[in-house]
Amino acid sequence: MPGNSFGKLFRITTWGESHGPAVGVVIDGCPPSIPLDESVVQSMLDRRKPGQAITSTARKEADRAKILSGVFEGMTTGTPIMIMVENRNVDSSAYEPYKDLYRPGHGDYTYQAKYGIRDWRGGGRSSARETIGRVAAGAVAQTLLRRNNIDIFSFTRKLGDIEIRSFDRNTMDQNPFLCPDAEAAEKMAAHVSEVKAAGDSLGGIVEIRAQGVPAGLGEPVFDKLDAELAKALMSIGAVKGVEIGAGFEAAGMKGSQHNDPITPEGFASNNAGGTLAGISNGDEIIARVAIKPIPSIAIEQDTVDIHSQPQMVSVKGRHDISAIPRINVVCEAMVWLVIADHFLRQMAIYDKARKF
Amino acid sequence: MPGNSFGKLFRITTWGESHGPAVGVVIDGCPPSIPLDESVVQSMLDRRKPGQAITSTARKEADRAKILSGVFEGMTTGTPIMIMVENRNVDSSAYEPYKDLYRPGHGDYTYQAKYGIRDWRGGGRSSARETIGRVAAGAVAQTLLRRNNIDIFSFTRKLGDIEIRSFDRNTMDQNPFLCPDAEAAEKMAAHVSEVKAAGDSLGGIVEIRAQGVPAGLGEPVFDKLDAELAKALMSIGAVKGVEIGAGFEAAGMKGSQHNDPITPEGFASNNAGGTLAGISNGDEIIARVAIKPIPSIAIEQDTVDIHSQPQMVSVKGRHDISAIPRINVVCEAMVWLVIADHFLRQMAIYDKARKF
Amino acid sequence: MPGNSFGKLFRITTWGESHGPAVGVVIDGCPPSIPLDESVVQSMLDRRKPGQAITSTARKEADRAKILSGVFEGMTTGTPIMIMVENRNVDSSAYEPYKDLYRPGHGDYTYQAKYGIRDWRGGGRSSARETIGRVAAGAVAQTLLRRNNIDIFSFTRKLGDIEIRSFDRNTMDQNPFLCPDAEAAEKMAAHVSEVKAAGDSLGGIVEIRAQGVPAGLGEPVFDKLDAELAKALMSIGAVKGVEIGAGFEAAGMKGSQHNDPITPEGFASNNAGGTLAGISNGDEIIARVAIKPIPSIAIEQDTVDIHSQPQMVSVKGRHDISAIPRINVVCEAMVWLVIADHFLRQMAIYDKARKF
Amino acid sequence: MPGNSFGKLFRITTWGESHGPAVGVVIDGCPPSIPLDESVVQSMLDRRKPGQAITSTARKEADRAKILSGVFEGMTTGTPIMIMVENRNVDSSAYEPYKDLYRPGHGDYTYQAKYGIRDWRGGGRSSARETIGRVAAGAVAQTLLRRNNIDIFSFTRKLGDIEIRSFDRNTMDQNPFLCPDAEAAEKMAAHVSEVKAAGDSLGGIVEIRAQGVPAGLGEPVFDKLDAELAKALMSIGAVKGVEIGAGFEAAGMKGSQHNDPITPEGFASNNAGGTLAGISNGDEIIARVAIKPIPSIAIEQDTVDIHSQPQMVSVKGRHDISAIPRINVVCEAMVWLVIADHFLRQMAIYDKARKF
Repeated sequence: MPGNSFGKLFRITTWGESHGPAVGVVIDGCPPSIPLDESVVQSMLDRRKPGQAITSTARKEADRAKILSGVFEGMTTGTPIMIMVENRNVDSSAYEPYKDLYRPGHGDYTYQAKYGIRDWRGGGRSSARETIGRVAAGAVAQTLLRRNNIDIFSFTRKLGDIEIRSFDRNTMDQNPFLCPDAEAAEKMAAHVSEVKAAGDSLGGIVEIRAQGVPAGLGEPVFDKLDAELAKALMSIGAVKGVEIGAGFEAAGMKGSQHNDPITPEGFASNNAGGTLAGISNGDEIIARVAIKPIPSIAIEQDTVDIHSQPQMVSVKGRHDISAIPRINVVCEAMVWLVIADHFLRQMAIYDKARKF
Repeated sequence: MPGNSFGKLFRITTWGESHGPAVGVVIDGCPPSIPLDESVVQSMLDRRKPGQAITSTARKEADRAKILSGVFEGMTTGTPIMIMVENRNVDSSAYEPYKDLYRPGHGDYTYQAKYGIRDWRGGGRSSARETIGRVAAGAVAQTLLRRNNIDIFSFTRKLGDIEIRSFDRNTMDQNPFLCPDAEAAEKMAAHVSEVKAAGDSLGGIVEIRAQGVPAGLGEPVFDKLDAELAKALMSIGAVKGVEIGAGFEAAGMKGSQHNDPITPEGFASNNAGGTLAGISNGDEIIARVAIKPIPSIAIEQDTVDIHSQPQMVSVKGRHDISAIPRINVVCEAMVWLVIADHFLRQMAIYDKARKF
Repeated sequence: MPGNSFGKLFRITTWGESHGPAVGVVIDGCPPSIPLDESVVQSMLDRRKPGQAITSTARKEADRAKILSGVFEGMTTGTPIMIMVENRNVDSSAYEPYKDLYRPGHGDYTYQAKYGIRDWRGGGRSSARETIGRVAAGAVAQTLLRRNNIDIFSFTRKLGDIEIRSFDRNTMDQNPFLCPDAEAAEKMAAHVSEVKAAGDSLGGIVEIRAQGVPAGLGEPVFDKLDAELAKALMSIGAVKGVEIGAGFEAAGMKGSQHNDPITPEGFASNNAGGTLAGISNGDEIIARVAIKPIPSIAIEQDTVDIHSQPQMVSVKGRHDISAIPRINVVCEAMVWLVIADHFLRQMAIYDKARKF
Repeated sequence: MPGNSFGKLFRITTWGESHGPAVGVVIDGCPPSIPLDESVVQSMLDRRKPGQAITSTARKEADRAKILSGVFEGMTTGTPIMIMVENRNVDSSAYEPYKDLYRPGHGDYTYQAKYGIRDWRGGGRSSARETIGRVAAGAVAQTLLRRNNIDIFSFTRKLGDIEIRSFDRNTMDQNPFLCPDAEAAEKMAAHVSEVKAAGDSLGGIVEIRAQGVPAGLGEPVFDKLDAELAKALMSIGAVKGVEIGAGFEAAGMKGSQHNDPITPEGFASNNAGGTLAGISNGDEIIARVAIKPIPSIAIEQDTVDIHSQPQMVSVKGRHDISAIPRINVVCEAMVWLVIADHFLRQMAIYDKARKF
C-alpha cells in the first residue's frame, strides 16, 4: 500500500527507479509566493553527487533538476511542485550478473518477498537514486525555512574506526569527508584507502543540527518532533540507528546529570538535544544517525539465488566505499523536511499572530 | 494540529490527561470476528502497574479497562473499539507547588510554549498515564497477531551502569527489572538502592524482539518497517534513541562483517535486525531504545518560573527511580502496534491468496 | 479498514453502537484557549432529541454529554477532546424479531456482507445514534467559528410532497418541522398525520447555509470545499443527494444565466452557492441534501432472512416518520465541521498575518 | 495545505498547470504484477480529447502519455507509477486580455483570494487539463478492476434542455454526445447549434454506472462508498450536484416506495443505487452529476478587475459549448478510482480468503 509520501502540511511524494526514465518528487503544501528556481534545487542536489569524495565512485552523474509545475514567474503558487531528474547514462548490463541473486545486505530478497516482482536494474526503487527526490524537496524546505532564520547542517562524526575529537565548522568543507576535525579527516583518508584496497566498505555516524528552530514545534503524542525525526532519518537506506541529544549515553546518566537546568538566559546544557516531551524547546536540535557499511563489496560472500541455491557473490564495479559523505545531505534534507512540516503545523495554527 | 493517532490500517487515537476524568484509546481498523474481552486488555495493562518493581513508586493504581464499543458477544465487529480507564484517587495538590514552575527535563516549558496553556495536574497530557491507551491498544494488536503466530517481548538490557552479560528469557520474570541476566539483576538492585538514597534517578536500555514476523512487511520508501518502529518507539516519553539490529555498532563495522550471509536455511547472522531496505526479511526483529533517567528527582535543580525568574526545585513525592521496567511493556505495545499495522498493510494486499 | 475519522486539521473520530454502553467522539486538533463547557455541547445535542417534532417518536432519550479530556478550567488545551454520551434505557428486545432478517432500506444486509458479523441491537453502528458524536463535535466547531463571525443554520425545504414557497428565518422555530414557510408547515403537519396513519414514512430536502465564511477556504484539487461538503453530507445515513448553489438546476441553465456577475460590491447573484473552483468566494455557502424516507415502516415488505429464505417484515415500534427535523442539526453539524477544518487549513497558513 | 491527493490504498496525486511544461499524476499503492503499458492509458486519455464532439473546440491536443516509473517489463512493480503528459502548442497570449480580470464563473477570483498569486495562463491549476492526471490514473484503476470483472461506464442524461427518454447503451457511441437515446441526441445537436450561435453555453447531467461491484465496499461511518463518490465527483470542476440511486427524487417518495424489497434472487428494485448504509450491496452502482454550463461565453458580462474596478468581459476564442461530453470520461475515471480504492480496502482485508 502507499508508503511513498512524507509530511502532513509540507507533503512530499517521491517516485522513480534507478534505471527507469527519471526520478522525482511532488511537493504538495508549499506556501505560495516563495521565490524558487532550479538553481537552488540544483545546488543542493550537487552536494549528493558521486565523485566528490574519495569514498565515492568516479561515475559521472549529470543530474539536472527540472521544475515542471507549481512555480510561476519565479514564485511558488501554492500548487504542487513537481521536480524531475532524468536518469542518463544508465547501463543496466552491470547488474545482469546479479539479477537472479540476492545480494547480501541489499533489498533484493525483501523486495522479491514483498512484491513478488523486482526491478533489478541498479537496485530499482531501493537505489540511493530515490533520495534525489528527497534532496530536491529538501531544497524547497530549506528555502522556506531560511526565510524564517532557521539553519540546518550535517557533518561526519565517525567514519569506520575514526571518530572526531574536535569540532570546527569551517574545517568540514576543507576535506572530502565533511569532517569538522582536520586531524580525524587525515586518518579517515588513510582508513579509506586501506579498506578500499581490501575490497571492503565502511559505515559511520552523521550528525545533523538545526539552529533557530522556535520552541513549540512537534505534535504530541505520536507526531512528536523527535519521533518524526527518527522516522525521517531511519527511512534513509543505510541508517540503522537514530538518537537525539545525549541519545544512548543518556541511558547511563543519572537524572541530576541529564536534566538540563533552566535559567533566565535559557537552558544551561543541551542533553535533551532541543526537544522536551517531543516539542522543540528553542535550543539547537541535535540528531545523530548510525550508517551501516555499503553492502556492495568486492570480497566474496555467501548468498542464494532466486531458486534458493547457494551461490558466492562478489559485487564488482565502481561502488562507493561508504555512504558517507554523500548520505550527509540526504540526512540534512530529511531534517529540513521534518522541520518545514512542523513549522507549518505549529506556526500556522498556534503562533502569536493567530487568535481563535 | 492533530498528532494523537498512529497507524494507517490498524489505527489508534489516544486521549486523556493524567488528572482528568479518564484516559483511553479508540482503535479503528481492527478486523472483525476476533475474540476480545476486557481480561486480555487488563492483563497487559497490569504489566505497566506501578509498585511492581523496586524502581517504582508504591502508589496504588487500580486501573480497570472498560471496552465501550466495537465488541459484540465477545467478538470484534470491525467498528471502532473504544477502551477507557478512569483516573481514580488523583490528588492534584501534590503538583500545586510546581504549577508556576518549569520542572527541568519535563514538558512543562514546551507545552506552555506550544499551546500557551497547560494542564499542570500530574503532567497533564505529557504524563506516562497517556501510555495506558497505547498499552490497551497493544493488547488488541497482540490478540490479532498471536493468532498469526507472531510473538513479541521486551527486556531490560541496561539499567544505569549495569548492563547484561547473558540472556535467559525465563530469568526475566524472576526479578523486578525484567532483566534476563540474574547476576546483572542483583547488581541492578544494589544500584537502585544507592541512587534512590541519593534522591537521584536512572535511565537504561530496553530491547524488544518480534518473532514469527513474515518477510515482506514495511512500505518503502517512507513507511519502512524500521522507520515506523523508530517513530513508534521515539514517541514514548523517555526514549532518546532507537536502533535496529547492530544499530550504532554497525557504524564501526566493515561491509564484510555487517552483511548477513544468506544460505538456503536463512540468514547466517542478524546484524540487520530483521529488516532489509525497510522490509522485514523473516528473521527476528530486534530494536533497542535508550531510556533517559526520570527527570523528577529530589536533588535540587536550577529552573525558572513562568515569569522567567530563577528558582530552585526539588521534586518531592513518590516518584519512580527509573522508567524501567514499567516502560518495557509500553515499548512492547508500540511494536505490537507497528507490526499489526504493517501485517494488515502487507498480508491484506500482497499475500499469496490474493490475485489482482 | 479505518473510516471513522473526518477532517485533517480539525479531526474527529466517532465511536460507539446504538445499544452498546456509550457513544462518543474524539476531537483532535482543536486550537487551545477556546472556552468550552458541556452546556454548549448539550444545547446542540438537545436539538437532535426525539420527541421534539410530530415526525418523531415519543421515546425519551436523556442524553447527557460529558467532556472527559482536553479541557482545563473551562478552556481547551490543544489536546484531544473526548466527549461521551452513555446509552441509557436501551431495550434490545424490540430488535430480537429482526436479528435474523435483513430489513429493507437498512444496512443489515451490507454490514453482514462486509464484516461477516453484525451487532443487530438497535442498528448497531449504523444507527442514527452514531450522529451524537458528530453533533457534539459540531458544537465545538461552532464555538470556534462563532468567535470568527461565522454562522451556519439549516432548515427544511421540503417534507414529502410539500415544498416551501417562502422563506422567513424566524418562522423556522415556530413549527415542529424547522420549516421557514408557515403555510407549508401547516400542510406538512397534515401530510405527516396522513402518512403516519398509513404506516408509511417520508423523505425531504434540507438546506444548510453558512454565512460569514471568508473567501479562500478549500484545497484544490481534491479537497475542494464543495467536494468536502458533499462527502460530509453524503456520509449521513439517510442522505441520497447533495447539491451546491443552483445544483441540479444548473444543468438546465445557460452560461449567461448561471455565471454570477461580479461587481465592486460583490457577486450580483449566487448560483455558485458560495464556491468557485472549489474555493469559498466570500458569499453565502448554500448546500441542499435529499433525505430518503425512513426505511422502518409498519407496512409489510418482502425481504429474506440470513439463510436467504423469503420473509415478510413489518417494522413495529415507535419509529420516526421522517428523519426530518432531527437530521437537520446533523447536517448543520457536518457543515460546521467542514468549515472549521478548512478555516484552520486556510487561515492558518495563508492568511494575511502570515509571511513565509 | 496539501489537497492534491485522493484515495487511501490506491492513492493518486496530480500535479501540473495548463500552460506549464507538463501535467501528470503519481499513483501510489497499485498492486504489483498487473500488466500495464502506455496504450491503455492513452486510449482512456483519447476519450477526453477536444474536437471529438460538436460541443467541443476544434483545438488540437496531441496528448501523449508517458509512464516514467513503477512499471518493469510491462508489469507494475508495486512502486509509484508516474504518468506525465507534456503541454504542447500552448499559447498563453490568448489569456493576456484576462490576466487582470476575474472572469465570472471561473476560479480567477478565488485562486487570487486564496493564494495571493495566480498563474493566469490557461486557467493554471484550475484548468480542465488537470483532469488528465485523473483520467490517466483512472485507466490504471480500470486495468486493475476489469481483471476482477468490474465494469464502469458513463453517459449523458441531459444536455441543456434536452433529457433522454430511452436508454440504449450501443447508441451512446453513435453520436457525439455520448447520449443513449438517438432521438434526444438529434435534438441535442440542434440545441447546441442554436446556443453556439448565441455565444452562450450549456450544462447537463451525466450518469455513471458501475457493474460487478461486490457487496461490502465502503468504510463507515465517514468513508462510506456513496460519500467518497460524492467527494470524488464534486471535486471535478464543473460539477454542482451529485446523487446516488433515486437521489433527489427520494425526497418525495414514501418509505414503501423507496425501500428496495429483497428477494432470494437479489434486490427487486434499485432506488438505493447500489449502496446501503454507505456499503455496496452488490447491485449496480448509479451516480448522477449536475454539470454547470461552461463559464467562458462570448456574451458580455459584468465583472471587476484586480483593482476592483468594474469591467465588461466577453471571452473570445475557441471554447467548448459544454463540458459534456469531454467531462464524461473524467466522471467515469473518478468512479474507477473510488471503486479501486475501496476494492483494495475491502477485499484486501475482509475477503473470504483472509482469516485473522
